[in-house]
Amino acid sequence: MFQKALENVKSHKPLVHTITNLVSINDCANILLACGASPIMAENELEVEEIAANSDGLVLNTGTPSVQKFTAMLKAGLAANHAGIPVVLDPVGVGASSFRRENICRLLKKIHFSAIRCNQSELFTLSEGVSAEKGVDTTLTGLSLEHTALLARKFAGQHQTVVAVTGKVDIITDGKRIAVIKNGSPVLARITGAGCMLSALTGAFCASNPDLFTAVAAAVGLVGLCGERAEQNMYLKHTGSGSFRVCLIDEVSLISPVELQGGIRVEYL
Amino acid sequence: MFQKALENVKSHKPLVHTITNLVSINDCANILLACGASPIMAENELEVEEIAANSDGLVLNTGTPSVQKFTAMLKAGLAANHAGIPVVLDPVGVGASSFRRENICRLLKKIHFSAIRCNQSELFTLSEGVSAEKGVDTTLTGLSLEHTALLARKFAGQHQTVVAVTGKVDIITDGKRIAVIKNGSPVLARITGAGCMLSALTGAFCASNPDLFTAVAAAVGLVGLCGERAEQNMYLKHTGSGSFRVCLIDEVSLISPVELQGGIRVEYL
Amino acid sequence: MFQKALENVKSHKPLVHTITNLVSINDCANILLACGASPIMAENELEVEEIAANSDGLVLNTGTPSVQKFTAMLKAGLAANHAGIPVVLDPVGVGASSFRRENICRLLKKIHFSAIRCNQSELFTLSEGVSAEKGVDTTLTGLSLEHTALLARKFAGQHQTVVAVTGKVDIITDGKRIAVIKNGSPVLARITGAGCMLSALTGAFCASNPDLFTAVAAAVGLVGLCGERAEQNMYLKHTGSGSFRVCLIDEVSLISPVELQGGIRVEYL
Repeated sequence: MFQKALENVKSHKPLVHTITNLVSINDCANILLACGASPIMAENELEVEEIAANSDGLVLNTGTPSVQKFTAMLKAGLAANHAGIPVVLDPVGVGASSFRRENICRLLKKIHFSAIRCNQSELFTLSEGVSAEKGVDTTLTGLSLEHTALLARKFAGQHQTVVAVTGKVDIITDGKRIAVIKNGSPVLARITGAGCMLSALTGAFCASNPDLFTAVAAAVGLVGLCGERAEQNMYLKHTGSGSFRVCLIDEVSLISPVELQGGIRVEYL
Repeated sequence: MFQKALENVKSHKPLVHTITNLVSINDCANILLACGASPIMAENELEVEEIAANSDGLVLNTGTPSVQKFTAMLKAGLAANHAGIPVVLDPVGVGASSFRRENICRLLKKIHFSAIRCNQSELFTLSEGVSAEKGVDTTLTGLSLEHTALLARKFAGQHQTVVAVTGKVDIITDGKRIAVIKNGSPVLARITGAGCMLSALTGAFCASNPDLFTAVAAAVGLVGLCGERAEQNMYLKHTGSGSFRVCLIDEVSLISPVELQGGIRVEYL
Repeated sequence: MFQKALENVKSHKPLVHTITNLVSINDCANILLACGASPIMAENELEVEEIAANSDGLVLNTGTPSVQKFTAMLKAGLAANHAGIPVVLDPVGVGASSFRRENICRLLKKIHFSAIRCNQSELFTLSEGVSAEKGVDTTLTGLSLEHTALLARKFAGQHQTVVAVTGKVDIITDGKRIAVIKNGSPVLARITGAGCMLSALTGAFCASNPDLFTAVAAAVGLVGLCGERAEQNMYLKHTGSGSFRVCLIDEVSLISPVELQGGIRVEYL
């Protein structure tokens, strides 16, 4: 199932239009190429509709936002919806400012998302309308795994989307089914852009696979498993977080569909 | 000849004003430093004329464009032409949107470029005015090497410039002479920004050498040869595309002018 | 002393709001995470006041500037001053254009900075109002170490701040005390963003330590010492400047407070 999902990315080579933040834009492009997809980065409102309409998937990431970028995201999202290609949202830092909160809510109202990839505090902000964040990284919201899964399932149902909430344990839900993935590495939280890269890959998997629930779970499992491998490599070679980041992209470029299938530790609630 | 071209970069240490895309801006700065040049990144219309006039070369790369950036490119290009320093164009994604096509055509009309570095489908779009692209990466345009070389030579002659068309095989032409360089690695297409980095280096070589045809060929050969070395290193160390990208910059920082001369596989048509 | 300074960063995990340039934004975020701090990158005037007020420190870096970014910097700086959190200035390329010079002078007038991190020619431009730069990298201004230290001390006194002037030898002064740090590597000048990364770390150290003079010196010593280690690693493994950059972040993620204390070579003038 996960094997087939990755095989489909590699054979389909989807063109993924990515509007993302200034911090991780290079990492997102490189990890898309590493898994066999093709990135196009374009964020000007004068060209995003044309580019989204010619792409196989669209990813909207709200880090380092501006009025212009939110306008471009809205135009690209509507064009993608019209073209029938999947759209993925990564609501980076939705609780960090009212500017982000308001604009992300507007995107959620106007665009249909195939998938939303966030962390626990971002889910909480999106669901409850109040901020549980300090900065853009996950903070303790005091939610248990079960509570988070139920919140995510409800939110997914409301928005007719697949929600992936990543953290120590990753939850994927389409509003009915709930998958819990236990791959991952604590070092993923010590590099910037791990979540952004996962969201970019989620766009590639959604663009290449008919079942979005499996597509999102495969992307989440891929980053978790490659994170584990990069962590092992880091300890073996006595390197640190800089090498871990490079190695994460190496592992995504090296892993085979069969290895992905064998390595994902998934349970269904 | 290529030896002397790289020696000139290392002794001249040209200051290369680079207006480039958000994806590869860090890579472009690092590869310029790796080869002995000095980068300055500045893209605001309020300072680009002053900065271009104080630089030794200018590179204009049209990825992630905006109205403001095209305005800045035009001002910088005119200032560079006025100061008599070389200007290099990398028309990234010229076929990806009409916004890029129209603005790149305007740059071509107003600015004299010393060199234009592109891929086959970008050349086709620039020459024929129609798009052969899907995204920003090379796609099959059905053109043979000979046909591409003739198209490039005609285009170079029309614009009084040196054109480098890179791909599986690289073509360099000044409108009369045609060189074909057979260095390179397929992994260069699996990282983002390889073309952008080459264009930045082309700016450094053009800023340091009197014969632009040789300068451009040396830059193309340098990236091809360092790409081969990085690929060998990747297989030796069982790494992937993340490490390849790091190693490409390593190789540019390590290669000597003599090694460059000995490693370039060039033919003249 | 330096041991305690790094311990404080690791235990305090400060949220550092960083407004920086497009070139080194990813490196700055990664090196903040590597040393135990948490970065938030936000540069839109509609959100920077809110984000700065919720952060533990603010860093303003003037590379790749725009009118919008200078406006955001001013708003963020005033909000940070109001909230009582430290603000660090990195006046990248202050001599490269009058646009930068004028706007950086305005920031200096309106905002109180806890620390200013620059190179010798930037100090000279800031102090004397004339440019000694070619590009954004240090150039020979003909100033001796003693002359530079006196200039820095005077400037620090005038602005009630801690000034760090980095180069072959690093000078830190609070307007009274002068520390000279002799760690470092010439390879730091062969990668882009080494200064930017140091300025980001300076924000983390100032946000976590009561004595700003020690905080700044500890950040300067950390990058110098990790640069030495990365250089050794580069020679051991026969790599180049690309790997050096990755390894610099590795070393920051690996070094212990005790190792930092033991490795800094500091003298007081």
